[in-house]
Amino acid sequence: MLRLGPLAAAGRLLPAGPRLEPPRPAGGRVSFLRCWPPRLPGPVGDGRPLSQQVRAAADSAGGGGGRGLALKTPKGTRDHPPAHVALRDHLLAAVVACFKRHGAAAIDTPVLELRVPFARYLAMNKITNMKRYHVAKVYRRDSPATTRGRYREFYQCDFDIAGQCDPMIPDAECLKIVHEILSDLQLGDFLIKVNDRRILNGVFAICGVPESKFITTCSTVDKLDKVPWEEVKSEMVEEKGLSPEAADYIGEYVQLHGGLDLVERLLQDPKLSQNKLAKEGLGDMKLLFEYLTLFGITGQISFDLSLARGLDYYTGVIFEAVLLQQENDHVEEPVSVGSVAGGGRYDGLVGMFDPKGRKVPCVGVSIGIERIFSILEQRVKASGEKVRTTETQVLVATPQKHLLAARLKLISELWDAGIKAEMLYKKDPKLLKQLQYCEDTGIPLAAIVGEQELTDGVVKLRDVARREEVDIPREKLVDEIRRRLEP
Amino acid sequence: MLRLGPLAAAGRLLPAGPRLEPPRPAGGRVSFLRCWPPRLPGPVGDGRPLSQQVRAAADSAGGGGGRGLALKTPKGTRDHPPAHVALRDHLLAAVVACFKRHGAAAIDTPVLELRVPFARYLAMNKITNMKRYHVAKVYRRDSPATTRGRYREFYQCDFDIAGQCDPMIPDAECLKIVHEILSDLQLGDFLIKVNDRRILNGVFAICGVPESKFITTCSTVDKLDKVPWEEVKSEMVEEKGLSPEAADYIGEYVQLHGGLDLVERLLQDPKLSQNKLAKEGLGDMKLLFEYLTLFGITGQISFDLSLARGLDYYTGVIFEAVLLQQENDHVEEPVSVGSVAGGGRYDGLVGMFDPKGRKVPCVGVSIGIERIFSILEQRVKASGEKVRTTETQVLVATPQKHLLAARLKLISELWDAGIKAEMLYKKDPKLLKQLQYCEDTGIPLAAIVGEQELTDGVVKLRDVARREEVDIPREKLVDEIRRRLEP
Repeated sequence: MLRLGPLAAAGRLLPAGPRLEPPRPAGGRVSFLRCWPPRLPGPVGDGRPLSQQVRAAADSAGGGGGRGLALKTPKGTRDHPPAHVALRDHLLAAVVACFKRHGAAAIDTPVLELRVPFARYLAMNKITNMKRYHVAKVYRRDSPATTRGRYREFYQCDFDIAGQCDPMIPDAECLKIVHEILSDLQLGDFLIKVNDRRILNGVFAICGVPESKFITTCSTVDKLDKVPWEEVKSEMVEEKGLSPEAADYIGEYVQLHGGLDLVERLLQDPKLSQNKLAKEGLGDMKLLFEYLTLFGITGQISFDLSLARGLDYYTGVIFEAVLLQQENDHVEEPVSVGSVAGGGRYDGLVGMFDPKGRKVPCVGVSIGIERIFSILEQRVKASGEKVRTTETQVLVATPQKHLLAARLKLISELWDAGIKAEMLYKKDPKLLKQLQYCEDTGIPLAAIVGEQELTDGVVKLRDVARREEVDIPREKLVDEIRRRLEP
Repeated sequence: MLRLGPLAAAGRLLPAGPRLEPPRPAGGRVSFLRCWPPRLPGPVGDGRPLSQQVRAAADSAGGGGGRGLALKTPKGTRDHPPAHVALRDHLLAAVVACFKRHGAAAIDTPVLELRVPFARYLAMNKITNMKRYHVAKVYRRDSPATTRGRYREFYQCDFDIAGQCDPMIPDAECLKIVHEILSDLQLGDFLIKVNDRRILNGVFAICGVPESKFITTCSTVDKLDKVPWEEVKSEMVEEKGLSPEAADYIGEYVQLHGGLDLVERLLQDPKLSQNKLAKEGLGDMKLLFEYLTLFGITGQISFDLSLARGLDYYTGVIFEAVLLQQENDHVEEPVSVGSVAGGGRYDGLVGMFDPKGRKVPCVGVSIGIERIFSILEQRVKASGEKVRTTETQVLVATPQKHLLAARLKLISELWDAGIKAEMLYKKDPKLLKQLQYCEDTGIPLAAIVGEQELTDGVVKLRDVARREEVDIPREKLVDEIRRRLEP
């Protein structure tokens, strides 16, 4: 039975498969603007006793005899059974551990929100300096595409650094965080693409795109990771109204990707280096690479001029992490691979909420926990292993009848000592049934008290996997269990 | 600075203060039936760039120049700043640890739900056996009374055992769980009141209450912990239409409370012991006390015939835990004391959802985490201590200029070793400012690298509280930090 330690990396190589969904916005919790409110039919909770309400609902649903309720979850949502929650909690714990490792405090804002909660929170509380994370369920309104793993209810994990900082220090930390989380989760090879809005805007400017078309051109460029250049170009020309020459000129730049060498090359580019914004962006990109070198993570970083990201509020560095599907993947269905984290700098957003327009520079990252969950879930499925859904360490068992009191007394001692323990809820369960329960649910130890053990003042401690038993003096039992369960 | 270890018990005694709110239903997640849906004005997310939407919202809100948004959270909701979340996470962790200690698996059901999610989940998935917990935010629709700590968005923590069991074994475990959680959280003295719906119904029957009035009489009896008997009696007679004699007769029973002795006495009661339901209930109550004695927790258990609990779906044992406000409380404002956990047996609910009416007996408990939070929050406030909102263990600092690279390299090493570390986001911060940051935020250690330390291959490790510094060889730094931070 699989215990949720770090999940084994697959270590394989294949061309990237289709994406599950477009990259979600990150670096700020914006989803509400697209998604709320969910609506449920009619008034509920009319003051009648609950059982009457249930019966009434059943009857109006066409069922007879107080039954026949349509048993399903609301549209676009699903239940999460224990195996789901165990895996998801494991993921969330790794993400939160990383956020805490970087000194972030947690905040929580109401799930009902008409705006970008973090920006509103900072402006409302006049906070000019904060490193925070927020892990919570959020909701989106778009038509659910549950077959593609897209639900109306999902988790969002955000980390943001707000405040006046020296250039690129917090930006570099955000990339380090992405690197740590993807490494910790052992998701296999990944690449973090980095770009800067100022560089993109500089490219657009020197290619003759009017400023009013920067944002829309940006969203066209962002498609380059999914469709070939020719399609992107034709969208630019036919839909966005750029000249073919301007589009070709843009194409020369946005198809570039590399490392520090490319940054240096573009800093020497006669036209681009004359553009103030682009020069600033390239200078900061150089600094970023310097810091990432000190962090030892440049091997997974690609300066990619095609990265544009959808949201218009980014003002500086932007980034997005993708998993690289690897060869020899022996999963049954191809795992959809795509963006699993993203974010960037947004220096203007908080100021929009502030009555006096005071700016609070921010940089943030959002971890695509739902997509990572889908990937890990497929891997677990492919491995054929069962996920343990409980953490029970010991089953308290009895081999004869009339020993319920002995079980209750012993299990109470174990609980009070902090040991995770269960027993069957039967007065006189068969020993075989009790041991079978251990094997079915992955409980590693059984503490057995029979008449003989009670007389001798011992407990028989059974290693379930090895089927070995040894008598332990009662007063040493807790220590012995702890010793055996040490990692 | 307060670290969130177990919070100190107050250990004081005062008459119970006013309640924050009536006890919430427990042993099933029913809140949705009373509370959904929240509604937000108008359509949001119209496809325009986010910044334009924000500006448009600001303008329509009467602000000028793209600003002036009404900066508030939606009605009945609030933000949770880091100190809130740190305290709440500490509480939730203790609750979840207890649920896991008892072998429960976690499930998660959609927040949008028209019915009792756990019962629906069991019926829909044809599950006849499950021990599960569910910790999640839920919503209620009633007019918010935020000044009394009653919000539209709040956490609910449920634990339930579903399945055919021998009598009172899982029921006793639910009470043990309440006892463990309230003890672990060191909330001071508490009492767990226990009763059984069958005993109450038996009392009503022998007192001449028609069966159709059992539920409504139940909810009148439930007020006995807040108002004197005379008021309860007059409600029974004037509003519920019982005869004064029946009411008086009921009064003789429902004002009784005690321990196993009272159970034994009622088992001898000539009339009550003739009622089949009451006899069953009393027999099981005796068994329950036997098991609770083995658990060693009868000191905090009171068999209280006035306990009725509001929900009509309970079919057997019911219980509710109250904190006892104690004398010498030196808190500034009186802490509202009341029900902090409750639950009971509901053997009929799942069957209402099952198309064939198959019953799944259940017993469950709900922990009133929001009320416990309010109590602890007041205590923390009264103590004047600050709650640490981050877990940072080490600040990486430099004493001279031009050492940013050294800080970045060192902090990266610490992060990679799993140490929680921060640094200031400035190129050349003053040492004093860095050390001040440690004191302000409760960071216990500072790792200082200056020119001399770099030359010597050491790091100066500073104990912030003691203001002591010692040079540690670089390669031993991680071990030394771990050693110092051992509990």
